[in-house]
Amino acid sequence: MSDPRLGIGPGQIIKHGKGGALQFSHDELTREEPMEIRIGRKVVATTMRTPGHDEELAVGFLVTEGIVFEQGSIENVERPNDSTKNNNVLVVTLKAGLKPQVSASRRLGTISSSCGLCGKRNIEAVRHAFAPIPVGRKRVPVEILLRLPDALRENQGDFTRTGGVHAAGLFDFDGNMIAVREDIGRHNAVDKAIGRAFLDKRLPLSETILMVSGRASFEIMQKALAGGIPIVASVSAPSTLAMEFARETGQTLIGFLRPPTFNLYSHVERVILPA
Amino acid sequence: MSDPRLGIGPGQIIKHGKGGALQFSHDELTREEPMEIRIGRKVVATTMRTPGHDEELAVGFLVTEGIVFEQGSIENVERPNDSTKNNNVLVVTLKAGLKPQVSASRRLGTISSSCGLCGKRNIEAVRHAFAPIPVGRKRVPVEILLRLPDALRENQGDFTRTGGVHAAGLFDFDGNMIAVREDIGRHNAVDKAIGRAFLDKRLPLSETILMVSGRASFEIMQKALAGGIPIVASVSAPSTLAMEFARETGQTLIGFLRPPTFNLYSHVERVILPA
Repeated sequence: MSDPRLGIGPGQIIKHGKGGALQFSHDELTREEPMEIRIGRKVVATTMRTPGHDEELAVGFLVTEGIVFEQGSIENVERPNDSTKNNNVLVVTLKAGLKPQVSASRRLGTISSSCGLCGKRNIEAVRHAFAPIPVGRKRVPVEILLRLPDALRENQGDFTRTGGVHAAGLFDFDGNMIAVREDIGRHNAVDKAIGRAFLDKRLPLSETILMVSGRASFEIMQKALAGGIPIVASVSAPSTLAMEFARETGQTLIGFLRPPTFNLYSHVERVILPA
Repeated sequence: MSDPRLGIGPGQIIKHGKGGALQFSHDELTREEPMEIRIGRKVVATTMRTPGHDEELAVGFLVTEGIVFEQGSIENVERPNDSTKNNNVLVVTLKAGLKPQVSASRRLGTISSSCGLCGKRNIEAVRHAFAPIPVGRKRVPVEILLRLPDALRENQGDFTRTGGVHAAGLFDFDGNMIAVREDIGRHNAVDKAIGRAFLDKRLPLSETILMVSGRASFEIMQKALAGGIPIVASVSAPSTLAMEFARETGQTLIGFLRPPTFNLYSHVERVILPA
């Protein structure tokens, strides 16, 4: 059913090509829908996300925002029976006797927010909510780092199709993929990947690299820290605060990772650089 | 003072060049700091932003999130006298007798969130908070649209330097620039531009195009709608929800605006297409 007032029917778009050629087309856009995360009956967040891997997103959000800390503290994650909302509600049940770290989440201000930083009234609180990451024995050769952008892309399905999605990948220090997830929201892609790792009981993610397709902002570093991730690599630019934060928390921050070049912003001691 | 454990001193980074060449360098990163927005004594939001045009950001946020509607309803915006927070607090004073639309902001869930969509528990509420935009008499020729990406870039200072900043520009239907603003956050760049227009008493921004450097997501469309903006153009992809929303609200949505080509997703009647 086409809407003549629009000139564009459902599922249709108009492409303006070179030389002004016009054609109706079908464009595969990235899906974006709201999702509500509840702990029991309590709504803790609503986020716009690309549907898929919703369970991972719910769990990852709770973990990276400091609401749930311990591996094994989540009993299950399911859609509510009463849902009339197109499956856009996820209910997390904690292990008997456990309570969400409401004080932590209040402190981090995440109660009604899914975006990493929104509502975090006290940045200092975030800085102090998680312990710095110590340097382990294993280090990463430059060659492994240089392979990550391709590895991320190869495991991405949506981007090449829609051009409008962010990706986050977890890799070990040998470059082996642990999880790659995509979402219209940068934070959600990270939450999904870390949520997957949490469900697989892999936290803390020591000796792990988080590779992101977008910028490295403060909140990405914070989410990585919550997951225990020592190295964050981005194809794009970090912010000043991301760099300062990484220097304080012991995280290695790599930016503009566009082989054969990249920048190192902090804690180079985890990288085996050419002699 | 350099930290030998880091191997990288303050203000320093390490660049890994082609062939593994290493050099210390100085990188101009995009600044990112938290800013708190208050109405009187009440904190309504904290957002991570790139410092600069803070007054516009505070005002723009309140307008695009539906907390302040009327042109002229803001008495002034200033730093608090008691601030010890590096000028990262803005206090908005409303005209005597006016109250913030707390019911609106509660409904939109923006009280503790700066990100467009965070905490918006009821998307339907957003859809209905602002009236659809009618089609006016004036239309925009394709040639004007094709000029916008360059016009945006020419008025951007930070991006070419840092590579990590988003831009939002307001242009009239003849392509004249009204305001171009940058920020590490996509939403903030839009809020700053609309805030500038609000302070200049230009709202509602009928016969105005919002051009953004990033994706066109739902919340960008919503912020444009709050400003009365009929056309949104993006160099990148829209989401499904952005397209659906634009079709409902009467907004013209243009994506992948990369001259000489672009896509039209809704309400083509505002664009003078080639015959």
